[in-house]
This record gives sequence, C-alpha cells and structure tokens, in this order.
Amino acid sequence: MTPDLSSLDALPTPALLLDESRMMQNIGRLAERAERLGVSLRPHVKTAKSVEAARRLMGGVPSPITVSTLAEAEVFYDAGHRDILYAVGIAPQKLERVQALRARGCDLVVILDGEAQAQAVVQSDVPALIEIDSDGHRGGLRPDDPALIQIGRILINGGCLRGVMTHAGESYTVRGATAHADFAELERKAAVSAAEALHDAGLPCPVVSVGSTPTAHAARDLTGVTELRAGVYMFFDLVMAGIEVCAVDIIALSVLTTVIGHQPAKGWTIIDAGWMALSRDRGTAAQDVDQGYGMVCDENGRVLLDLIVCSANQEHGMVSLRSGVDGPMPDLPVGSRLRILPNHACATAAQHDHYNVLPQDGGPMQTWPRFGGW
Amino acid sequence: MTPDLSSLDALPTPALLLDESRMMQNIGRLAERAERLGVSLRPHVKTAKSVEAARRLMGGVPSPITVSTLAEAEVFYDAGHRDILYAVGIAPQKLERVQALRARGCDLVVILDGEAQAQAVVQSDVPALIEIDSDGHRGGLRPDDPALIQIGRILINGGCLRGVMTHAGESYTVRGATAHADFAELERKAAVSAAEALHDAGLPCPVVSVGSTPTAHAARDLTGVTELRAGVYMFFDLVMAGIEVCAVDIIALSVLTTVIGHQPAKGWTIIDAGWMALSRDRGTAAQDVDQGYGMVCDENGRVLLDLIVCSANQEHGMVSLRSGVDGPMPDLPVGSRLRILPNHACATAAQHDHYNVLPQDGGPMQTWPRFGGW
Repeated sequence: MTPDLSSLDALPTPALLLDESRMMQNIGRLAERAERLGVSLRPHVKTAKSVEAARRLMGGVPSPITVSTLAEAEVFYDAGHRDILYAVGIAPQKLERVQALRARGCDLVVILDGEAQAQAVVQSDVPALIEIDSDGHRGGLRPDDPALIQIGRILINGGCLRGVMTHAGESYTVRGATAHADFAELERKAAVSAAEALHDAGLPCPVVSVGSTPTAHAARDLTGVTELRAGVYMFFDLVMAGIEVCAVDIIALSVLTTVIGHQPAKGWTIIDAGWMALSRDRGTAAQDVDQGYGMVCDENGRVLLDLIVCSANQEHGMVSLRSGVDGPMPDLPVGSRLRILPNHACATAAQHDHYNVLPQDGGPMQTWPRFGGW
Repeated sequence: MTPDLSSLDALPTPALLLDESRMMQNIGRLAERAERLGVSLRPHVKTAKSVEAARRLMGGVPSPITVSTLAEAEVFYDAGHRDILYAVGIAPQKLERVQALRARGCDLVVILDGEAQAQAVVQSDVPALIEIDSDGHRGGLRPDDPALIQIGRILINGGCLRGVMTHAGESYTVRGATAHADFAELERKAAVSAAEALHDAGLPCPVVSVGSTPTAHAARDLTGVTELRAGVYMFFDLVMAGIEVCAVDIIALSVLTTVIGHQPAKGWTIIDAGWMALSRDRGTAAQDVDQGYGMVCDENGRVLLDLIVCSANQEHGMVSLRSGVDGPMPDLPVGSRLRILPNHACATAAQHDHYNVLPQDGGPMQTWPRFGGW
C-alpha cells in the first residue's frame, strides 16, 4: 500500500523521514544474499540506532547484531538482543561495563589487535575477536603478522579466543560490483588466512567475520567465512548510490524541509534544513557526482534531478540548480515542502532523535525513537 | 582555582568537556566590548543549547537571546528568558507555534525578507525584523531593494515592524581584526542604511541588529546600531582561532578520548573519538592551517602541537604527526587519554547530549544537559 502522505503536512520541519517499505526491501535483499552465500548475517545497528528498526531485521526475532558503542549494546540488550559484537577496538577502561552486561546474560564480544588489550580482556574474562587488516583502512593486524599468534595464545590461555574479524572500509572508495567483489575477496582472504594461521598454531578460530555494505552486496564466494556484517544497507544513501551499491530510488531515509526564502540574484531557494538536520557529511564530494549536501526531491519523494543542496549553514540550506543545468529555477514559494536525500545515512540520522516512519502497510505515520551517546 | 582533573579519570569516553573558566572569560570579553561600543548584546544560544550556560551570560539574569530553532525558544523561555529573536527566515507553518509562545508571555520576534512572509506574520500578529543582506552570504534584502519599503509597509500596517537585522557570515572567510572590522562596517552600513530608508518612507525602525562572532570582536564603531549578536564566542573553536578571533588556549570546548589502538606502519594512533563525537565539520579545511578533525591536547589540555586528528570514521579517529613534522610519534599506549579541540564548536557540541563541566571554582565536575531538535 502507498503510505499516507497527508500526515506529512502536519509535520514540523526539518524532520527525518523513513520509508519502511524501502527499508524492508533493503533488509530482504541482503538477507537473501547471506543465505545464498551460506553465512549468517550480523547487521550493524549503528546506522539505525533504533529498537523498532532492529526488530525488523529478522522478522521480529532479535537478531545477532554488531554495535559501535557500549550504549548501543546496552539498549539493544534491553530490547532482547543477546548476541552482540562491539566492533571498535576495546579500551581497558571499558571492560567493566562489558562485564556488567555479560553478567546480565548478554553474549557481548569485543575486538582487539594488541597484546596489552588481550591481557586486559583475559583478566576480565571477556571473549574477543582479533581484528585483521584486509585493506589498510583502519586498525587490525595483517594475517601474516607474528603478533597474531602471540595474541591468539594470550586469549586462548584465558579461554577468550572467539575468532577473527575484518572490515574493508576502503571498498567505499571504488565503484561497481566488480571492484566491490575484489574487496570482498580481500576481506575473505585476509580473515580466512588469519584463521588458518591460528589453526596451524593449534589455536581454534570458530568465528570468521567479514563485511561492509559494498562487499556484502558484491561477494561471490565466502568459503571459510562464518558471518557477514553490514550497516548502512538498511537505509542506503547517496554515497552508496554513487558507488552503485543501490539505486537512488531505494534510499529509505530523507529529510523533510520547508522553503523559507529566496535569493534570486544567486539562484538560491533557501530551506530550513541546514547541516544540523542534514549533517556536515560530504561523502559524495570525492565521487564522480558531488551531491553537495543532498539530492532534492518533491514532498512525495520524486527526485528533482536538476536541483541540489549546494551549501548549508546551521539551520539554512541553499538549493540551486546543479552546475551545467540551464535555468530557470522551478517555482518553490515560501512554505513549499521538499525532501532531501542524505549523503551518509549514519551521519544524517544521528542529527535527529526520532524517525517519522511512513509504514509499509500504508497506515498513519509512526514515530520510532532513536538514541545516541556512548 | 584549577579544576579538579582527577574526575576526568572516571569519565567514559568520548566525552564533551567544557572549561567554565575559559567560557566566562569569553563571555566577559564580548560583554565589555558591547558596553564600550554602546550597544546591547543579544547572544546566540544555538552554540551552547544549554540553560546552564545561558544563565552565565549576564550574571544569572536571563538575558535577551537569539535562537536558531523554535525548540530553543521554548526551552529558553521556560528557563526564564523573555526577549527572544528567532533568527531564521520564518515559514508560515511555524507561526502557530510562535503565537503559542507569545501568548504565554514571550516577546518572540521573527525575521523575514519576503512579502508573503510579511502578510503571514501580520495575520498572526507576530512582530518581525526585516532581514538585510550585508555581504551576499545567505538571505536578506539589499538595503536599496524597493521590496524593503513594501515589506515595511505591510508590517507597519499590521503593527508588526520591529526593525532590521543582518549577519555577515562571510566574515568567517577572512583573517585578522582589520578584515573583520571591514565586515563589521559592512554590517553596520547595510543595517543602518536600511533603517534610514525605512525612516525616510515614514516607517519607524527601532531595532537595528547586527553581528557575527568575528565582526562583534572587531567592530570599531557601531553608530546607529542598537544591538549586537554573536554565538560561538562563548566557547570559540579552531575556525575562530584560524582567523585570529581568539587564541587556541582560550577554546573552552574539547572532546576527551581514549587511545584504542595503533597502526605503526601508517603512523596512526587510533582513538575512540570519531566523527560521531567530533562532528563531520571540516571548517578549517579552507584555512591556511588545516586542522583535520581537530588539534590534539594531552589529558590536561596542553596542546601537542605536532599531532592532528588526520581522519575519522564513525567511532574511530586517526591521530598522526602533522605533515612536515619529523619524527617518532609520541608513545601513547592503549588506554591513554587525550583531548581534541573542535573545528566548529556548534557542530561538535551538537553531537553530545551533555557537557562535562570543569567548574571555574575548582569544585567537582558538573553535568549540564544540552538539547537538540526543532
């Protein structure tokens, strides 16, 4: 059914909109892929930070999840999720909070890539994955680093070795399924060869975890991998569209905004969505098509291809024609409504404390809280 | 007194720190300037969004304020502020909320630069300032635009004309007191000549409001101006330091963070403050010295001049030597604490729901809530 768009009229702007029907298509697409590839899926909930959204990942059953903060671990545990990976290198100071959540029955697992961290988690009796660097993007050990075995030994002696994980964040910088499949193979090879190195040293490695949204959607073969992670795919965004992971018309997130002025000499229509509502993320700036602070749609979500949010102040966005497009600007009087598609769903959603949800069953708009903090 | 820094040890990271003593110096500096220039001060509370911080603007007396959202107007009215300027072009749909707050006793004034807006505010009996464009930065009418008088007539006939206002946002793009004084004079001339044009047409213009943090700190003469606005000056940040409005060591805001890993081959120390804690704002990117995602200080706030946050993911920051600096990275083991100075205080503060305040009287750390939304 078509969502009831009449309720948009009463919504104060700027406001974060979530199209549930698109989100469910995105969730279904990756769930099918994971099943076909023979791996379990551990979605990253750092994009949504919403209990309601996470509930829809596996048809109402609290699924295994990945989190980026201990606050997420705590909120999602309270919402029924029991199997949680905290996928940011652990600081020893945070282990007390990890232990507290584990003591309540949460199978919370941390990641690390250093010996001091390994000694600290063993002292706290917290299970860990060793982070593997598959593409030079961030943290992690190369699979042939001798430290891998040393850390594996520290962990196994304390009963804390769960396995290995990697994330090819550099896959965001290349375009197209072939390039993403190459990065998926980098992830697989790095994680599987690290697991094999551990095995060869007599250290069991039950979990081999890989993933990023681009690689998860392009991987051809995940032999040796046990689980797949991805986050932004639930909503998608212009960065993902720009590297051809999704089409623009499946992006589930947008910001509803109202026209508040014009500067005709500059060709600007001014809207009440500035960077506070859209975020400062300019993730498409380095892509082939720079989408400024976002693509412009009409109130019903139809893309207005000639327009772009060309700049943003705190509570002002400037809408103009894209460079190269001949005018005139469409007539958008003060009070008109538009929707802006985000560069980066994680960043834009983080600027808001709730989603205004257009339900897939076509009923009235719903409000789903989201949370932040650490 | 020196703040009690021992309480920092117990703070989970990342965490937003506010040095009250520095904030009070910044508040005092501009209050003195405004007094010397013979204008009243209407601080912009969009940076702080904190009732506790706003209470310190005028020694505990709720001061006249500028706001960027109606949510701010409502929260600060409930905290005792009665004289509030909503300095974002009004959308007709928002007038009902403005009226509701006015009906409760708030002297809430809006801004506009179009005839349709003027007609809407007259119908709602809401007073308004006409926005004047002094530097081509955003909205507003040029002072010689005939629409100024037409809008003035619509407003005066409805009893809604309060005056004019302008904001030289382009002053952020130039460096040094002389350049900022030139922009201050642009603001003054534009606002005063608009007020004179209204006077000449028989339209009284009691309020002549100007300001931005750079121009407010550099203006030499404000003849004809009645009030001065500025916001980020309460905290200051690296953008303001980069254009020489403040020194780095008076920036009141920072993000406390913990080292969570290393990537020696890349020269990275990885911290738990990514863009979620620091914001995506890269306001220093176009300045002479690009500060990356922020300058690095030790736990006590001493600047480590050789270091910079060179890149950021959602919950990871990468600290490295500045380009051109030789030499080994300092030894910062996992678990070490650092502080990061923000590019843009408004954006960084907006990523957090409270301030951890180091009080100027040296007592224990305080928590001041901050709010967001619209």
